[in-house]
Parts: sequence; C-alpha cells; structure tokens
Amino acid sequence: MDEVRIIEIKKSIFEDNDKDANNLRKELRHKGVFLLNLMSSPGSGKTTTLIKTINALKGDINIAVMEADIDSDVDAIKIKTATGVQSIQLHTGGMCHLDAEMTRQGLDGLDLNNTDLVILENVGNLVCPAEFDTGASKNCMILSVPEGHDKPLKYPLMFSVCDLVLINKMDVAPYFDFDIDKCKEYIHMRNPNAEVIPICAKTGDGIDKFVAWIKTNILQWKEGK
Amino acid sequence: MDEVRIIEIKKSIFEDNDKDANNLRKELRHKGVFLLNLMSSPGSGKTTTLIKTINALKGDINIAVMEADIDSDVDAIKIKTATGVQSIQLHTGGMCHLDAEMTRQGLDGLDLNNTDLVILENVGNLVCPAEFDTGASKNCMILSVPEGHDKPLKYPLMFSVCDLVLINKMDVAPYFDFDIDKCKEYIHMRNPNAEVIPICAKTGDGIDKFVAWIKTNILQWKEGK
Repeated sequence: MDEVRIIEIKKSIFEDNDKDANNLRKELRHKGVFLLNLMSSPGSGKTTTLIKTINALKGDINIAVMEADIDSDVDAIKIKTATGVQSIQLHTGGMCHLDAEMTRQGLDGLDLNNTDLVILENVGNLVCPAEFDTGASKNCMILSVPEGHDKPLKYPLMFSVCDLVLINKMDVAPYFDFDIDKCKEYIHMRNPNAEVIPICAKTGDGIDKFVAWIKTNILQWKEGK
Repeated sequence: MDEVRIIEIKKSIFEDNDKDANNLRKELRHKGVFLLNLMSSPGSGKTTTLIKTINALKGDINIAVMEADIDSDVDAIKIKTATGVQSIQLHTGGMCHLDAEMTRQGLDGLDLNNTDLVILENVGNLVCPAEFDTGASKNCMILSVPEGHDKPLKYPLMFSVCDLVLINKMDVAPYFDFDIDKCKEYIHMRNPNAEVIPICAKTGDGIDKFVAWIKTNILQWKEGK
C-alpha cells in the first residue's frame, strides 16, 4: 500500500480568522494557486468525486490534494493510488473544521511549485466548516441524495457560503424520496447565486460539468474576476 | 399544520460540562426520567426512525421528544403529527452540538410529569455532539448504509461514546458497497461493548429490536443497574 505524508494540525492561535483567511487568499493569488474548499456530510462521496474529477483534469492542470480527517489516512492513500497526484493527509486531532491557519499548515506541507489547483477535502460536517473561511478561492459542497432534499432548511449557513452544490448519488434517486426541484428551490432560498450540478461519482455522470466549472473558475480567477 | 413549541437555546456558561452532565443525570434519576441521546450525520434517518419507534412504544411508555436543529421546526412538527407525543423544537442558533446545560434548557420546556422516556434528537453531526455529555442515560447513534462502512475509522469518538449503533437504510444495501461485517468490526474496534442493530426505518424492519433494547435499558436503569 502507498504511504502518504500525514500532518498533525495544531489548533490556531489567531483570533481573527477572517483577516487571516484574506491574507492567505492574497498569498495564494501571488503564488498562482487556486484553492478549492470541498465540504459535505460524512459519507456523501467527496473522495470518490475527487478521484473521478482529478483523473479528468490532471492532463490540463497540476493538482494537489489535502485530505482533512479527525483520524485515519485512508482518503489520502486512495487519492494518491487512484490519481497519482500529490496528496497529503491532515489530522485535525478531534477538531471539527479547518480554519485559515490550519489550512496554511497543510499548504506548508505541499510542494506548490507548478501547482495550479489545491483541493482541500474538509472534515465531513455540515455545521462547523461553514463557519470558518479557509482562505479558499471558492467553496463547493456535496449533498448526496440519501441525505434528503430538506438539508438546506436545516443547515442554512453551509448552503449560504458555497458557490457550487454538487448533488451526488443521483443513480439511487429512484430508491429515495428525493425531490431535486425542491432541493434546488431550498438551495436558492439560502443562496440565489449558488450553482447546482447533479452528479453520480460512481458512474462518472455529471463529472464533466464539474470539471468545466473548475476550469472556468480558475480561468476567471486568473483574469482577476 | 400543527404548531410546536420552539425553544431558542442559549450558549452555556458552565465550564465543567462533565460535572454538570452528572448532576443532570442525578436529577433525571430522581424524577424517574430516562434520557436517550440520539446522534447521527445529517440525513441518516433519525426522525423517521423515531416515528416508527415511538408508535411501537407509546402504548407502554410515556414519551417526550426534543428535536435539536440549527434552524427550522420541520422535525418537531413531523414527530407531533405522526405520533401525537409531546414534542418541542430546540433551536441551537448555529451551535453544532448540545451540552448538558443546553439539554437542561430543553427539558425545562417539557412537562416531565408522568414521562418515562425523553428522546433527544441531537444536531446532525458526527463530530461535536460526541464531545459533550448531555446528561443522557444512554447514547445511541444511527449510521446509514449510504454513508459507508468506514465511518468508525474516521469518526472514532462518536462510536466510542455510543451504547448502541443502529445501521439504517438496510433496504438499499444492494445498491451500495456496504460491508456490514466490516462495519461491525470497525465499530467494535472503537467500542467492544457497543450493540449493533441493523434496521430499515422506512419499512420498519428491525424497529422491534430497537424497541426491545429501549425497554430493557429502561428496566435495567430503574433497577439501578
């Protein structure tokens, strides 16, 4: 089995996370690194989605991945084995989210030369990660069909802060009472500007649209939009 | 539509939650009220499981329910409409968990005369609720099949603190790569004493076993075991 670097993240000492996040965003712009923060509930399919997406992107874009988890290194190993891109595991030691300083500790463990895109797979949690700006260029979240279409009603902040919502596990929609129109309506109640892309990471359906979204957003970001 | 009482939970001022939780447990024992703390990820089926379970239990046991959510009152209304038992909604105002003092604020909003069992549906989150003793007599969690059998590796504390793990959505197991034997093995790595009951809240399969577990545990608790 492949081995990956594991970084034990320390608790931040910075009190003003918003300020720190803005500083990190500026530093990343200076380095030409687009940081995508990917959030979701546990088990919504973040890692599988990333593997399919990275394999579709890696010919055009140099990618590195930071996998945040309370424990275990299974995700970073999976990513490295399945995609070959630079991948590290961040252990949060029980902490339920990453803030900008913790994200910086992870970035310090990566070689950012010739890296265009860093994807941060945040801790599986719909509550706390939404409260902390990581310094990311864009926020994206995955809601999976089995979780139900009412989640934007119950976890409003998460949907408010995300530029893109991927609706995953569309292949099992016939077995669940999931109303995608209601789901989109609830998402747009929280965030009228959020884009929504239905996908199935297992079969690869819709991954091309996510890939196009990433390419477009990196391009616009490079142009300073 | 039925209306339910909504309690806006305030942040605790107690510094020693473990001490406060032990005090609350003593008070509840004095009142003869068994408190069951139910935790899970968002969308694992807590409310549906509760509705089926309460309807099977309510002839024998007087039950009240506290539904904790960051926002919305859909769950408390669902419980009240579908079961008729006393049900209140706790709004956490963005907070990701309940501790003992916050649980007490909820209990103060219930009529506990002639109540044998209070079920607390905690905030949907596998991380933070595991860190705070609510004063409950027993902790129970739901892991649903679509979340994957590896969750005890990634969220160790949650599985360590639970006396019972319900594995829900067993009806869709054929559509997911879910290995129940591996799941049980991982759960018991975290907590050798945890009981595991596979259920399907939608069809009602296995709810009889959860009902029996609750009855046995209340009986043992009343006998001081």
